[in-house]
Amino acid sequence: MAGPSVLTPQSEDFPKWYQDVVAKAEMADNGPVRGTMVIRPYGYAIWERIQSAIDERIKRAGAQNAYFPLFIPESYLSREAEHVEGFSPELAVVTHAGGELLAEPVVVRPTSETVIGEFMAKWIQSYRDLPLLLNQWANVVRWELRPRLFLRSSEFLWQEGHTAHATAEDASAYALTIHHQVYNDFLERVLAVPTFLGIKPPSERFAGATNTLTCEGMMRDGKALQMATSHELGQNFARAFDIVYQSEEGQSELCFTTSWGASTRLVGGLIMAHGDDNGLVLPPAVAPWPVVIVAVREDTAVLAACGEIGQALETAGVRFQLDDGRRGSFGRRVTDWEVKGVPVRVEVGPRDLAQGLVTVVRRDTGEKSVVSLEEVARVVAQLLGEIQGDMYEAARAFRDDRTHDVSTLEDAIVAAQRGFARLTWDVVGESGEARLKAEAMTVRCLQRADGSIPQHEGEPHLIAIIAKSY
Amino acid sequence: MAGPSVLTPQSEDFPKWYQDVVAKAEMADNGPVRGTMVIRPYGYAIWERIQSAIDERIKRAGAQNAYFPLFIPESYLSREAEHVEGFSPELAVVTHAGGELLAEPVVVRPTSETVIGEFMAKWIQSYRDLPLLLNQWANVVRWELRPRLFLRSSEFLWQEGHTAHATAEDASAYALTIHHQVYNDFLERVLAVPTFLGIKPPSERFAGATNTLTCEGMMRDGKALQMATSHELGQNFARAFDIVYQSEEGQSELCFTTSWGASTRLVGGLIMAHGDDNGLVLPPAVAPWPVVIVAVREDTAVLAACGEIGQALETAGVRFQLDDGRRGSFGRRVTDWEVKGVPVRVEVGPRDLAQGLVTVVRRDTGEKSVVSLEEVARVVAQLLGEIQGDMYEAARAFRDDRTHDVSTLEDAIVAAQRGFARLTWDVVGESGEARLKAEAMTVRCLQRADGSIPQHEGEPHLIAIIAKSY
Repeated sequence: MAGPSVLTPQSEDFPKWYQDVVAKAEMADNGPVRGTMVIRPYGYAIWERIQSAIDERIKRAGAQNAYFPLFIPESYLSREAEHVEGFSPELAVVTHAGGELLAEPVVVRPTSETVIGEFMAKWIQSYRDLPLLLNQWANVVRWELRPRLFLRSSEFLWQEGHTAHATAEDASAYALTIHHQVYNDFLERVLAVPTFLGIKPPSERFAGATNTLTCEGMMRDGKALQMATSHELGQNFARAFDIVYQSEEGQSELCFTTSWGASTRLVGGLIMAHGDDNGLVLPPAVAPWPVVIVAVREDTAVLAACGEIGQALETAGVRFQLDDGRRGSFGRRVTDWEVKGVPVRVEVGPRDLAQGLVTVVRRDTGEKSVVSLEEVARVVAQLLGEIQGDMYEAARAFRDDRTHDVSTLEDAIVAAQRGFARLTWDVVGESGEARLKAEAMTVRCLQRADGSIPQHEGEPHLIAIIAKSY
Repeated sequence: MAGPSVLTPQSEDFPKWYQDVVAKAEMADNGPVRGTMVIRPYGYAIWERIQSAIDERIKRAGAQNAYFPLFIPESYLSREAEHVEGFSPELAVVTHAGGELLAEPVVVRPTSETVIGEFMAKWIQSYRDLPLLLNQWANVVRWELRPRLFLRSSEFLWQEGHTAHATAEDASAYALTIHHQVYNDFLERVLAVPTFLGIKPPSERFAGATNTLTCEGMMRDGKALQMATSHELGQNFARAFDIVYQSEEGQSELCFTTSWGASTRLVGGLIMAHGDDNGLVLPPAVAPWPVVIVAVREDTAVLAACGEIGQALETAGVRFQLDDGRRGSFGRRVTDWEVKGVPVRVEVGPRDLAQGLVTVVRRDTGEKSVVSLEEVARVVAQLLGEIQGDMYEAARAFRDDRTHDVSTLEDAIVAAQRGFARLTWDVVGESGEARLKAEAMTVRCLQRADGSIPQHEGEPHLIAIIAKSY
């Protein structure tokens, strides 16, 4: 149907395919300053749906939104030694403002642990103020030498959660809650992306963290993408910013803090986890329009039928877009809707219509069915639920098919050429990590044998998930 | 009831009262870098409700959200002469990034006309691409020497709409639509703030605009606050950024553009338009919790009744907060809820409860009524609608009472000591504007005699609204 593809095939050049999709689906453009990004309306509409699904879950987990400044005094970053070392090479620095040289340069936030730590210290007095559960939606800047739209951009949009707790146990438990009930729930139910949950090996931790939890998704080229991370920061930031509370016993104690984030990188993950040679394939839950009604041509009867279908969909609570046939040939318009990944097309043509019929097409499988005009809203509403579930299952089958249990590092290196390798963590060790690095591979995460998240990398019998990654 | 106030009275020192409210209601704090602001959860929850109400209206007006970069090449600003002159003194400049001196310094956006102009030029080909209607929610930076939380901060949050049109008429009409259907509708129905709509005199226009529309609200001290503005930019930015389209006749034509914005300053306006000596007074539509159920003391029967009321409110679709009595004395908790401006308190005490009764208190008027437990949800739901309407009417009565028709500049100066003066624009003239400036007053806007928005300042018989302002 789709004719010659307008995109580079995935098998020919996956990075080129990605670039093509981002451009042709009108998702984003490169900004004028190196590594920055313009998110176009179609890409931004997807981000808004991602935001709202994550925000709802964050609020359910008890955190409150707030907003902290973009500009951070340079001296704040230096207070936590590993943190400043991790971020210094990526900082953008404001030296002049209001027409004058600043007495102390300010950095544009690469993340907000430091400034939020400063205010937590002010707001927390006693154990009654704990836990303090905050989140912010913001832009952050990390200078990128090899930028890539959505995946690595010098400025990106994200949410960053920051919490303070009385005990290490409470902090760990909350990081785990966020990981399961916010990130994994969102990834499974909304983005339809299965991930491996686990902790990062010490070499891959966030700068300043004592433990980093991650969700690693598999892209269509078999590489891994880190979709979201949650960090246990121990007392590192509490010590640096004097975040103390008075305990029930009247003692002054340091808090334990966490931070956790997910970014516009998720849009890149969405593209690469589901896309095919014809473009984006969107799960209905994040699609700006789950349905497009396509008039095969501009014709009074056709347009009247399109209007009827639109009304029926509206009544059924299904969001849709109407393509009234004015913009180019039917074939070209179908190609455009496919590139944009709209989950369901309802094609309305004069011939079918003479018999009271329309054609319903699934973007994910390409399956077509002919449906009566009266039935179409009901059929489509049901189909959207099926597609959401089927896309998750298809992504899981793809991932499982490309995930191999191996028993040596050499076998892991072979398996990770086109997917994930599962190898006992004890077999990897530090020297193994160096060997993997030479092959452009890393340990993406450590899991227990049953797939659950370990408390720390010292637990016995952990499995390392090894892959190439973005 | 409230006992000695925790705030400086408005009549004693209005700016101090404002600072006190912002602090005691836990709305915001000063950030560590000069003029920046930390928006605390309670303040941010109000901003989220403002955002969602404005965003809904913007989408209804046909504009699509997108996101453009924070960093703008310095050279972009210089392309429009008045624009660069207007913003240069307020710019923050990044000179170093990624550990290196940048070849061209980049500015942190003070507003995005320039960078969005650059992309409009890429995206617009023919008349079929017009109008192009974009909006973004973002942070912007304008270095402030006399910062004030929410009202003037070096970084603030806002939405900025940017549109391109084929004709001047279409651009004007769209700016007017935004002004009426987005800003004024939001201000009246959600913020319950009546404003005078009009255009700015040429001396007060946005840098680079040919016409600026404004909504001017009156604060409780009689000063004006500009709540939102919409700018007709003529072909100034189209010329600077080469935003051209091919007309139906095949001619290459310059577009006409507009821009329009509203910011976190609205939170400051909300505080000052409705607040009283006991703190914030929130209209139900923007209150994080329109209702708080207050247990007079921790008592099993009282808490059970609070739970019942909560369930009834939930069923009625009313958002609420529960104060279970654990945090301090009843009197102190009531004072806190008053400072936070929660529209309705439902006070549940053992004595009333023995008779199956609770007390319902309005924050705006202080009016109390005793209501049966069964009736409370119905009564409260109805009361919230009444409060929303009454607050608008009260604000309008206050404003009208302090707005005087005058016939000389000297009378205007007297009237504008404590409110607004309405004076024929012809009487003001350029020398009048200078005279007003000396009195720290300005022409806030020009209106037609019937209160409608004129097309330009040259229309006959215009009225100038004169006031002191924030």
